[in-house]
Amino acid sequence: MIAVPDNKIWMFDTTLRDGEQALRASLTKKQKLQLAQAISYLGVDIMELGFPASSPGDFDAVAEIARTVKGPIMCALARAVPADVRACGEALSGAEKSRIHTFIASSPLHLQYKLRKTLEQATEQAVNCIELARQYTDDVEFSCEDAGRTPIEDLCYMVEHAIAAGATTINIPDTVGYTVPDEFAGIISALKQRVPNIEQARLSVHCHNDLGLAVANSMAAVAAGARQVEATVNGIGERAGNCSLEEIAMIIKTREEHLGWHTAIQHKEIFRTSRLVSQVCNMPVQQNKAIVGANAFAHSSGIHQDGVLKAQNTYEIMTPESIGVRANELNLTSRSGKHVIKHRLAEMGYREGDYHLQEVYTDFLALADQKGQVFDYDLEALVFAQSLQERDDPYQLIALSTTTDAHGLASATVALQCDGATYERTATGYGPVEAAFAAIASMTNTPINMVSYNLGAKGSGANALGQVDITAAYDKQQFHGVGLATDIVRASVMAYIHVLNMIARAQHVHSLKQHLHADNRATSEVNV
Amino acid sequence: MIAVPDNKIWMFDTTLRDGEQALRASLTKKQKLQLAQAISYLGVDIMELGFPASSPGDFDAVAEIARTVKGPIMCALARAVPADVRACGEALSGAEKSRIHTFIASSPLHLQYKLRKTLEQATEQAVNCIELARQYTDDVEFSCEDAGRTPIEDLCYMVEHAIAAGATTINIPDTVGYTVPDEFAGIISALKQRVPNIEQARLSVHCHNDLGLAVANSMAAVAAGARQVEATVNGIGERAGNCSLEEIAMIIKTREEHLGWHTAIQHKEIFRTSRLVSQVCNMPVQQNKAIVGANAFAHSSGIHQDGVLKAQNTYEIMTPESIGVRANELNLTSRSGKHVIKHRLAEMGYREGDYHLQEVYTDFLALADQKGQVFDYDLEALVFAQSLQERDDPYQLIALSTTTDAHGLASATVALQCDGATYERTATGYGPVEAAFAAIASMTNTPINMVSYNLGAKGSGANALGQVDITAAYDKQQFHGVGLATDIVRASVMAYIHVLNMIARAQHVHSLKQHLHADNRATSEVNV
Repeated sequence: MIAVPDNKIWMFDTTLRDGEQALRASLTKKQKLQLAQAISYLGVDIMELGFPASSPGDFDAVAEIARTVKGPIMCALARAVPADVRACGEALSGAEKSRIHTFIASSPLHLQYKLRKTLEQATEQAVNCIELARQYTDDVEFSCEDAGRTPIEDLCYMVEHAIAAGATTINIPDTVGYTVPDEFAGIISALKQRVPNIEQARLSVHCHNDLGLAVANSMAAVAAGARQVEATVNGIGERAGNCSLEEIAMIIKTREEHLGWHTAIQHKEIFRTSRLVSQVCNMPVQQNKAIVGANAFAHSSGIHQDGVLKAQNTYEIMTPESIGVRANELNLTSRSGKHVIKHRLAEMGYREGDYHLQEVYTDFLALADQKGQVFDYDLEALVFAQSLQERDDPYQLIALSTTTDAHGLASATVALQCDGATYERTATGYGPVEAAFAAIASMTNTPINMVSYNLGAKGSGANALGQVDITAAYDKQQFHGVGLATDIVRASVMAYIHVLNMIARAQHVHSLKQHLHADNRATSEVNV
Repeated sequence: MIAVPDNKIWMFDTTLRDGEQALRASLTKKQKLQLAQAISYLGVDIMELGFPASSPGDFDAVAEIARTVKGPIMCALARAVPADVRACGEALSGAEKSRIHTFIASSPLHLQYKLRKTLEQATEQAVNCIELARQYTDDVEFSCEDAGRTPIEDLCYMVEHAIAAGATTINIPDTVGYTVPDEFAGIISALKQRVPNIEQARLSVHCHNDLGLAVANSMAAVAAGARQVEATVNGIGERAGNCSLEEIAMIIKTREEHLGWHTAIQHKEIFRTSRLVSQVCNMPVQQNKAIVGANAFAHSSGIHQDGVLKAQNTYEIMTPESIGVRANELNLTSRSGKHVIKHRLAEMGYREGDYHLQEVYTDFLALADQKGQVFDYDLEALVFAQSLQERDDPYQLIALSTTTDAHGLASATVALQCDGATYERTATGYGPVEAAFAAIASMTNTPINMVSYNLGAKGSGANALGQVDITAAYDKQQFHGVGLATDIVRASVMAYIHVLNMIARAQHVHSLKQHLHADNRATSEVNV
């Protein structure tokens, strides 16, 4: 009897782990939850939520997502050390389905310089941790870090022992993004041929994009027998990032007849998830990014436009609608009722619980008064801005006024409320933003360093909403603040205040943690 | 005697043609020249400069670059129609080495819907045009448009006739970015096997990135025997763009031992060229873009940082220096003399003639007074801002003052000089930018529509230089304006005025053209 090959490709999303790890400013638990929810709607099979042993904050976020979000298998990362594995087991205890993912380096370079161990010692360590992980769950993934630069016999040795110890998924990462497709496929084929117990585990790949080949390497590996692909939304991740989830998913869908593979991805969620990840992570997607870039479906040359008009598929191999790009941008005014907004948000893919209707409606009315017309992208921006606010924000902007003289010298007066009291200060600078920032800096005792500042208009027209994203450093940490307003000076000030609120919250968490650590020494074990 | 395989991969840059064609705002001749110069330094073998028959502006730009820029073979594009080919021949007549690139569709879909011709008719049309092109140059390239969806026997038929007619390079485009690597390599292999005269031409590939596979498809084609790769800097181009030049070049360099191929690319020019293309074309490069993204060489996770410290090559497969990223960012002050600036610019890769030293120095001193310290990125921004100015700019900003009250209502007074006279106007708006834009709009008779607005800070700190990029539509055309100032309101106003100056210049050119056309009917033939 001939075995029917299983052509389902398991999609493993690591946006919240490998993606998050590469961001300048860490995400808050609330932001991680928001992304996790969206990624679960995307239909991924497995979601890697974080690295619980790295910090109590990461532990908490993994635990809360694992408890709250339904659908995919919930996975967490552990170095091959017992404390890490136990942290994963505990953090994932509330999940319906859980997986522990542990790893150790297999390449001579990493063994020698990073671990200072022999291959046998590293393998033994891995085996012990896989066995430990199996005490928490039957679903254990093991990765050989830097497999791309590991001699094949060493790799086979480690993989065989990992499977024997109980690993159910074997992941082969190209950690440094160094391999090319034929070479990477060769590793997968060799494992299939040489490792006697290989059929007891699912083969997975995790490719980095340093040479721009993460997607191509993943495809080549699937052709050679891998059945799980690790990827991130928009391809974010360490350095040049990871395999882009939307690219591999759309390749498999668009070329299904040629390739013969399939995934469980809900393609119509791709565009919305991409936008959300881009905004929350402050990682803009370039216009010419495949699948989700602003130009991906635009045709500009006259030659092509003509072809497109004559028959849509002369130049279009997939439709914008297939990834959830909405064709019509509804135009709402201040006469639109609350039910209209609710209905429109539902059409745009928002679920109840994704936003607070009354608050969005209040903001909508204020914006409709200013702009006259409110478009889908405005509504989306309002929902996003609301998602950034927390109930306990200590700083509030009360008033802002600025002047600039003809020589370019500006002054700004800012009034802030903090813990019930109002503070006001005036300062000068080259331009109203610099002046307003100086005023805020002089009345708050939180010296921050601006790392990046970006402003983009949502939609078009002179009175479009401006969104300011700033990254600021304070006390060795970086914070991402967002401000949204029709006035870019006000949007800048709001982004600054958002950063101050995030710092205040981080300090609060930090002082709670100090307190906890003093009370309970046992928790420090997972913080290696 | 065994023939030694030629493993030089010819790099064909089409940033100025396929890349430019996808931009929202067309480039000016001056901008095209600036990019052409930079791309020639990059060491590409062939540069496609434009599509001369598409407009007199494109014809002029191709002609001027062909006369001025030295090094690569200068190429221009022609549909397979005699007028197009003649326009190429004339536009390229000043070049040291020239190539005419002509194309016609070969796929049933395109033949039927776009051309309404049989394969034989299209082939005959191609043959005639190749023969015509050979009257201008011995170097003729022929492309089968949508080759990726053409039955192989049809493709072989057309290619064989094109070579027989004198085509010296045969280019196989994946026009819609639909193929996957094994499939695309199969097309190249089939051509190598089936076309009897195939060795008389060099095989080339031109891949689009709709599925994120342009680089992988190009590599697979080279492995199958192609020896020319068409690419663009930063992968810009129609829709999701083209094969990224820097990715394919760095793959070939980094994996030279495995692949056995080489190019003539000057790798240390990659980063500078990438930045220039991104700025001039208003196509920002995402942080996680391979090779040239801001994060490409950054390591953020604790695990990786540790590995990097222990041995650089545990996580780095190439160094930032190898693509020309400078490690130190020199800090200059108002005490730095003109020779220091000149020396620093030379170290940063600027050649004399790339900028006007006295003007940059004047701007530098003004900025040093405001900021105290001036960094490399500031200097780069000043040189870039200078490159945008033309000697005959009709509009100049004389003065700008703004106020915003505590309720968010702003007013702005703007004074402009135009043709010797000064105009001043005050207007209100939600925020100083909207108010200032309204003031300018009310005194200039040029109603523009804002299409996009972006602001980024150059470097960090509250007094970093802000660069505003706006795209505005006027009379069916789009214009890209740039403003640079420490004050973002002023930077926004400068970007608006830059757009007005570009519109004025376009109108001037347009009226000249009208005049020319009335005088000389012959030139209209190339404007099909």
